[in-house]
Amino acid sequence: MPPASLADIQAALGGTLHGDPHRRIERIAPLASAGPGDITFLSNPRLRHQLQGSQAGCVIVSPAVADLARQRGDTLETPDPYLYYARLSQWWAARMAPAPSPGVHPTAIVDPQAEVHPSVSIGPLCTIEAGAVLGSGCRLAARVHVGAGAVVGADGRLGVGVVIGSGCSVGDRAILHPGAVIGADGFGFAPAGGAWHKIEQLGSVRIGCDVEVGANTCIDRGALGDTVVGDGVKLDNLVQIGHNVQVGAHTAMAGCVGVAGSAVIGAHCTIGGGAVVLGHLELADGVHVSAATVITRSIREAGHYSGVYPFEDNAAWERNAATLRRLHELRGRVRDLEKNRTP
Amino acid sequence: MPPASLADIQAALGGTLHGDPHRRIERIAPLASAGPGDITFLSNPRLRHQLQGSQAGCVIVSPAVADLARQRGDTLETPDPYLYYARLSQWWAARMAPAPSPGVHPTAIVDPQAEVHPSVSIGPLCTIEAGAVLGSGCRLAARVHVGAGAVVGADGRLGVGVVIGSGCSVGDRAILHPGAVIGADGFGFAPAGGAWHKIEQLGSVRIGCDVEVGANTCIDRGALGDTVVGDGVKLDNLVQIGHNVQVGAHTAMAGCVGVAGSAVIGAHCTIGGGAVVLGHLELADGVHVSAATVITRSIREAGHYSGVYPFEDNAAWERNAATLRRLHELRGRVRDLEKNRTP
Amino acid sequence: MPPASLADIQAALGGTLHGDPHRRIERIAPLASAGPGDITFLSNPRLRHQLQGSQAGCVIVSPAVADLARQRGDTLETPDPYLYYARLSQWWAARMAPAPSPGVHPTAIVDPQAEVHPSVSIGPLCTIEAGAVLGSGCRLAARVHVGAGAVVGADGRLGVGVVIGSGCSVGDRAILHPGAVIGADGFGFAPAGGAWHKIEQLGSVRIGCDVEVGANTCIDRGALGDTVVGDGVKLDNLVQIGHNVQVGAHTAMAGCVGVAGSAVIGAHCTIGGGAVVLGHLELADGVHVSAATVITRSIREAGHYSGVYPFEDNAAWERNAATLRRLHELRGRVRDLEKNRTP
Repeated sequence: MPPASLADIQAALGGTLHGDPHRRIERIAPLASAGPGDITFLSNPRLRHQLQGSQAGCVIVSPAVADLARQRGDTLETPDPYLYYARLSQWWAARMAPAPSPGVHPTAIVDPQAEVHPSVSIGPLCTIEAGAVLGSGCRLAARVHVGAGAVVGADGRLGVGVVIGSGCSVGDRAILHPGAVIGADGFGFAPAGGAWHKIEQLGSVRIGCDVEVGANTCIDRGALGDTVVGDGVKLDNLVQIGHNVQVGAHTAMAGCVGVAGSAVIGAHCTIGGGAVVLGHLELADGVHVSAATVITRSIREAGHYSGVYPFEDNAAWERNAATLRRLHELRGRVRDLEKNRTP
Repeated sequence: MPPASLADIQAALGGTLHGDPHRRIERIAPLASAGPGDITFLSNPRLRHQLQGSQAGCVIVSPAVADLARQRGDTLETPDPYLYYARLSQWWAARMAPAPSPGVHPTAIVDPQAEVHPSVSIGPLCTIEAGAVLGSGCRLAARVHVGAGAVVGADGRLGVGVVIGSGCSVGDRAILHPGAVIGADGFGFAPAGGAWHKIEQLGSVRIGCDVEVGANTCIDRGALGDTVVGDGVKLDNLVQIGHNVQVGAHTAMAGCVGVAGSAVIGAHCTIGGGAVVLGHLELADGVHVSAATVITRSIREAGHYSGVYPFEDNAAWERNAATLRRLHELRGRVRDLEKNRTP
Repeated sequence: MPPASLADIQAALGGTLHGDPHRRIERIAPLASAGPGDITFLSNPRLRHQLQGSQAGCVIVSPAVADLARQRGDTLETPDPYLYYARLSQWWAARMAPAPSPGVHPTAIVDPQAEVHPSVSIGPLCTIEAGAVLGSGCRLAARVHVGAGAVVGADGRLGVGVVIGSGCSVGDRAILHPGAVIGADGFGFAPAGGAWHKIEQLGSVRIGCDVEVGANTCIDRGALGDTVVGDGVKLDNLVQIGHNVQVGAHTAMAGCVGVAGSAVIGAHCTIGGGAVVLGHLELADGVHVSAATVITRSIREAGHYSGVYPFEDNAAWERNAATLRRLHELRGRVRDLEKNRTP
């Protein structure tokens, strides 16, 4: 791939260039380590002290630091450097790895009753069942499975080994990473006679547009109704979404989050890594949950919520944890002291 | 699929029908949203207030609410409506998706030394190694792997991409969801000279009858002896079962649970989502562990155990968590106050 | 496989044999259950009371307990019995399951521009893309995917369904268990206009030598630079390693651990199962984190760190947890009592 010039970048993505349009850019790099062939960005104003020492060929900056940055060298000025970086990374990735040619690999197994748009690219060993629909521009890596009647919108990117269960649907521009499983059975059983009796999961999964699903993440199908994931939702790796969960638009969940069945999570929420949301709860729009926090009741108001045991040196933790187990008693002792206080 | 009549349902599943046997049922639906073509159930007596307003074509009810329910319309009366619903869902699912015809997909790779019952259905791209045994009625979806000498009992349903390692065994009527891995190596190393030396895992995994294993769940093989999962055990998605663990019959674990090596978990336990059970512990029969609780010592008595940090508004959490780190000291201060109390 | 004699074992692995060199060993077994055809080991001196009653054919022991053990029967004496057991398990496994013959299964899809050493064994349905390199002695199970330009060092063992993304590299003697995903995209988005804009992940994953990666574990590729996993690192199942994380040599992480992006973890650390390490933190060499602990700030000193809510009977937990939510207030009350104390 030939290096891009600053003029190429500006032509593709806009911004105001102060510097040499012919400068060749070979890489995008972090501010601290960027060299003369690299473009970088400054989005966090607290890092502005790194500007002066940076060897970067060009820095993407906001107007607030533009003057300072221009003293150092070439700049691309734009209102939101981080967003510009995101778009630059997309442009860069498309240059590095152009979309594969449309077509079906000869080892893929596509049911004649599947509807595959002619622009779709299907990798080796994929299995596309009857009634499945693949929208225009979809790119399936190796051994993707799309079950009977499942629908994938336009321009989906499905990683190696992705499984989309029968009857599930995924909107346009989906990115599903390797090993993601959409539409396994929800976890539902009726207890009777000391055993669990399976409740067949008759619903499906409906995923909106612009959704990204991480590697080995699981989204279960609904018991009766559907599990619903809104537009623009981003799920990291190894996330578990139980049956009949609803995830509002543009909500993001970091790795290893677990959301139990029938939870309703609002729009524009963020759930930190390893957090757990119990079943049948409701979280309002704009709720931000810290990593590893366990949400045990509904949250009606936007805000930032946490519940993490503070870690310590093991010996200190042991002392405090032992006391914690008698905390209620300790409160009683304080009460007694208060009652008996000399007036 | 033609709709079922209430008479069809009663003929298949029993119960006392009060209403029109010719009524056609097109769907099973929740009580709150069921319409005239739907059958629903009332299992939680606290929801009986929803009965009057329900548009459902028929409600499955217990004798306790039968009179009330019959004022509204058609009912199917049965001692345990939730169990009836479970069995109805099974009957319904079997009607919707009849079992595939027996046979081996031409792209499946079945070793001539595997023992495959003639009634088995093997999907595309499966790999069945020498000495593997597949019992009657097994249904393997696409790209299932059954390793050398592994045994799957009768009527197993193995989802896309399931891996059963060599020498492992799974009892009758198993349901394994996509991406489940049975029989990866347990995590065992001898530390020496600043490095970890692999302990090859020479045991296997033995799984009982009527076990369900969720998507991307892992059950490791034993180091010397076997990892053992009892009859009727239900594991949700993304669960980790370490080597040499024993899980008692009819125990259920929700998503993202981790059980470390050599733990022995009793029968009829429930482990909530995201909980962790440390290694070499024993849990008695009938132990119920709340979601996200960490079990750090053995539990000898049946009961309900919890250990979850209560979440709060982040600012409140910060204050309380900071105090928690000085809790032992605080107890000391209370002690001092008690000692110095005016007698 | 014919049984081994004690002389065979000593010839292969060393140690001082006291006993019958012709004794036939059929199994390695735990001390408590070993029978006359079994070899076992005693590494934990606290278990020495089990020696006398053991029926084992031979016990591997350290010099410290050698006299006691020889009173019972045959012994193999070695300075580190646990390490000896590890090496014995390796020798045993190699005897039980000899390496497959080199060669490419006819259903594997190997790009002509991949570099595959002639000693490599490639299982059915593998997909090896252009520019991929497989070092000498690699053994790939069924449906392993090695992306374009990815490199696997010598003697790698890649389990069923492993995915190595394009451009990623894995050192010599790697063991990757089924379903592991190396090189999925890191979780990076720029928020703008109420939506998340994808930051393409342009880095890769670089894994050192002698690394083991558990089933369904995920190691994401870096955003700009690479995610780096040092030599001798051992990761259990269902572990999540975020983008640009660095894991120092010989660090081990148990199942279900999550490490968020850009964390830098030292060498010779151990991270207990279900623990979470937040992003952009640094952990010194020799840090040991208890299971289920959440690391929320950097740790500069080697040591043992914990932060686990102690579990209790549910009723006791409810009382204490409720008090915990007023802990800061309780501290204030203690302060007031201290102020008002009669001098």
